[in-house]
Amino acid sequence: MPPMFESAELGHAIDKDRYDAEEPALREALLDAQYDLLESKKCPVIILIAGVDGAGKGETVNLLNEWMDARHIQTHALSAPSADDTERPAFYRFWRHLPPKGKTGIFFTSWYTAPILSRAYKAISRADFDQRMEEARRFERMLTDEGALVLKFWFHLSKEQQRERLTKLEKSSKTRWRVTERDWKNFELYDRFRKVSDRALRETSTAEAPWIVVEGADERYRNLTVGKAILRAVRGRLDATAPPPIEEPAPLSRPIDDLNVLRSLDLTRAVPKEEYKDEFEKLQRKLTLLTLDPRFKELSVVVAFEGADAAGKGGAIRRITSALDARLYHLHPIAAPTEEERAQPYLWRFWRHLPRLGKLAIFDRTWYGRVLVERIEGFCSKDDWMRAYSEINDFEQQLTDSRSVVVKFWLHINQDEQLVRFKAREATAFKRFKITPDDWRNREKWDAYERAICDMVDRTSTEIAPWTLIESNDKYFARLKILKTLIGRIEQALEKK
Amino acid sequence: MPPMFESAELGHAIDKDRYDAEEPALREALLDAQYDLLESKKCPVIILIAGVDGAGKGETVNLLNEWMDARHIQTHALSAPSADDTERPAFYRFWRHLPPKGKTGIFFTSWYTAPILSRAYKAISRADFDQRMEEARRFERMLTDEGALVLKFWFHLSKEQQRERLTKLEKSSKTRWRVTERDWKNFELYDRFRKVSDRALRETSTAEAPWIVVEGADERYRNLTVGKAILRAVRGRLDATAPPPIEEPAPLSRPIDDLNVLRSLDLTRAVPKEEYKDEFEKLQRKLTLLTLDPRFKELSVVVAFEGADAAGKGGAIRRITSALDARLYHLHPIAAPTEEERAQPYLWRFWRHLPRLGKLAIFDRTWYGRVLVERIEGFCSKDDWMRAYSEINDFEQQLTDSRSVVVKFWLHINQDEQLVRFKAREATAFKRFKITPDDWRNREKWDAYERAICDMVDRTSTEIAPWTLIESNDKYFARLKILKTLIGRIEQALEKK
Repeated sequence: MPPMFESAELGHAIDKDRYDAEEPALREALLDAQYDLLESKKCPVIILIAGVDGAGKGETVNLLNEWMDARHIQTHALSAPSADDTERPAFYRFWRHLPPKGKTGIFFTSWYTAPILSRAYKAISRADFDQRMEEARRFERMLTDEGALVLKFWFHLSKEQQRERLTKLEKSSKTRWRVTERDWKNFELYDRFRKVSDRALRETSTAEAPWIVVEGADERYRNLTVGKAILRAVRGRLDATAPPPIEEPAPLSRPIDDLNVLRSLDLTRAVPKEEYKDEFEKLQRKLTLLTLDPRFKELSVVVAFEGADAAGKGGAIRRITSALDARLYHLHPIAAPTEEERAQPYLWRFWRHLPRLGKLAIFDRTWYGRVLVERIEGFCSKDDWMRAYSEINDFEQQLTDSRSVVVKFWLHINQDEQLVRFKAREATAFKRFKITPDDWRNREKWDAYERAICDMVDRTSTEIAPWTLIESNDKYFARLKILKTLIGRIEQALEKK
Repeated sequence: MPPMFESAELGHAIDKDRYDAEEPALREALLDAQYDLLESKKCPVIILIAGVDGAGKGETVNLLNEWMDARHIQTHALSAPSADDTERPAFYRFWRHLPPKGKTGIFFTSWYTAPILSRAYKAISRADFDQRMEEARRFERMLTDEGALVLKFWFHLSKEQQRERLTKLEKSSKTRWRVTERDWKNFELYDRFRKVSDRALRETSTAEAPWIVVEGADERYRNLTVGKAILRAVRGRLDATAPPPIEEPAPLSRPIDDLNVLRSLDLTRAVPKEEYKDEFEKLQRKLTLLTLDPRFKELSVVVAFEGADAAGKGGAIRRITSALDARLYHLHPIAAPTEEERAQPYLWRFWRHLPRLGKLAIFDRTWYGRVLVERIEGFCSKDDWMRAYSEINDFEQQLTDSRSVVVKFWLHINQDEQLVRFKAREATAFKRFKITPDDWRNREKWDAYERAICDMVDRTSTEIAPWTLIESNDKYFARLKILKTLIGRIEQALEKK
């Protein structure tokens, strides 16, 4: 017998007297904790409800909604993914439904539902399944690192208990509707489901988001167990004075000489205007044709633009969009997060802008703000930006897994060229909006930025989503290289179709 | 020849010299206006692009994106509605994509697309078509009243021009992909399309959102015409010192005696506890069974709760939700709007929470805040709340048209009862969060609220979405009446299925 579920087959039960004695206090304490949470906006509470059919999942969630203030609980039983969802990464629908800080989200359908079902029915291989579990673990790690409280309940029944339960439900005219053919079909596969679930729980029971296995046969035991676990966790979080301990991330290596990827760029590279014009038109035409290729409808493109101030991001982006039909792309300038965005993990505001198949999303400044401006200005803690590297890698992995081509550009100029451009901008009334006191301040932090950029490239230039550094002292050279890179990446992806 | 398009068949054309002379200044002025708009956040700009196939719609939009800063323009070519959309009112997808204040949204697919196509192919009757045009007019009226700038461009080609254009596009290998079978099929129906479009434009060319018909044959003429129209409109709005004039709404009648719907409520109505318990359980069971009826999947339910402070909204809502499976409903407590919500029309934050089929959305406080607290506290102008009545009626009409049952409750208590409850709340530590200084302040405005509530009921209690006033001095009586009303409305809707 797999030990994971052993202690949930002991026949736990609570008698009515004890339940009646404990329930009112628990209920009051839960409501109390909920209001404290709402007021402090300390964190979101994410509750996953999974387990064996008939083990009381629905009843328990209904009870939680009754015990607490249902106005601040969002219960999600997501229906089958629509095209809106399936054309984006698997986690998209969950990101979209994450509760904001202070609120509680209960998920009946979670990131475990599809993998467990698919594996039990042998629709995916064991390796695929393990991969999905790894993704779940990393997703939850991101959530908890971002401060979320993640509680995962597994409602268990032994095979005999499940048979009894389904039979009993079927006997009463009031509950017969709840037992479907699917339930009995799943029951026939009880042993397989058990094995797969056991593996799932083992692989994803982490220190920060452990599974809580609940024996589902006795209603009173089930209710008190779940209620108390939630209370303990929420209260614990509310009463914690220090932020939850995060293990010290591995230190980034300090440079021991003056060499780095930025300094080794040859910023003298340039293209004469006439040559540029011909080449540019050819490339634009090529890009246009690529987006018209029927296979283009089978992928999406995410283009990320970062760069020094005045390096020419805006101009480069315009050279791309002018080759594209406006119906095919969305351009997202990234400014300070809104109130709703601040109540979510920092990647949330990028997830909400992911493109559908056949479309491009172009980001003018990106999720890399976390490891650039936020790191340098101290807008987030060191822990926060240190873990951002792997979170970003996961994010981009999920993008490519869902048929996105991820193309990332860093536009680089040297300090002299930047000064020339700043002064030119100040002199041109028309471009004056493009130069702010912030730009001058950032300039003073050149060395810190250089360090941060090099770390960023070292840690996030992956095979699936490599950085392309653009020598941008000469705009013509820069624009051609950007177009060529983008075209190359799209071509490569189309060839695989 | 229908006169609507007459002036767009005159062979308008601009020669290259004039174009080259005018284009740079227009472009600069447009960009300038765009940044002023962005900075002032004065209004959103909503641009509709419609018209004959091949008349240059796509080219013009691409050019606008090139002329202006595409980062602050959202171009939408919405694909076919998904289940997410079709289970909600027809305008849902447009509400979801409205640009916030300061930004521009360009819609290729608009609220005219489906009606015109359907009517040209005779899939809907003329009466239905007229009804859709009326809805469009009212929707745009709401948008412009909320301050949006709405620009509607109709790109026109004569029959001969369209034939030439499609033939020419087909001849070149570079543009052949743009001509589909559908285009030729539509062309065969040119005369019918023209007649239907003419009617659409006539019926929806209003003072606040007129159609601008653009002859599409000459590219230069087209570009300058559209560019100048946008510039004039945006600049006009930016330079306007006073808010756009809104005609004075009809005054609400002043009461000439002490009788009103609230005062005529018999607040002594009560139910003994024992009787309540039996009846309540029966009703809850009934509600549960109704939501399990297979026909329930064919409708959605929107429940709106308003009421005096301490009238028992929360308790009443809990009595409903405890009869419901948590997977079936979402409960929306309405607090102050977020930053993103404030950048949109006031109804936007309710549209985003509309339920799908088979689900209930329960609102604890609602869109009626506009004609209650906002009216009384002066959070909006008199014009704003006066027009809210008809906007709300339109909103609820759209809900019922999309198979929603709209159930609205006003929970009423008298001043004495409120005082008793306020004091009881203050005395109970546990309920103290439920009483705030605001509650005491609101109490002093009892008469103003009474007037506002009566106006609200008079103007928004419609046949499709009637108000039910609940005598709430006795909680038992109130809860039973609420449950009975809700059950009655759902039963009535199910019977029609």
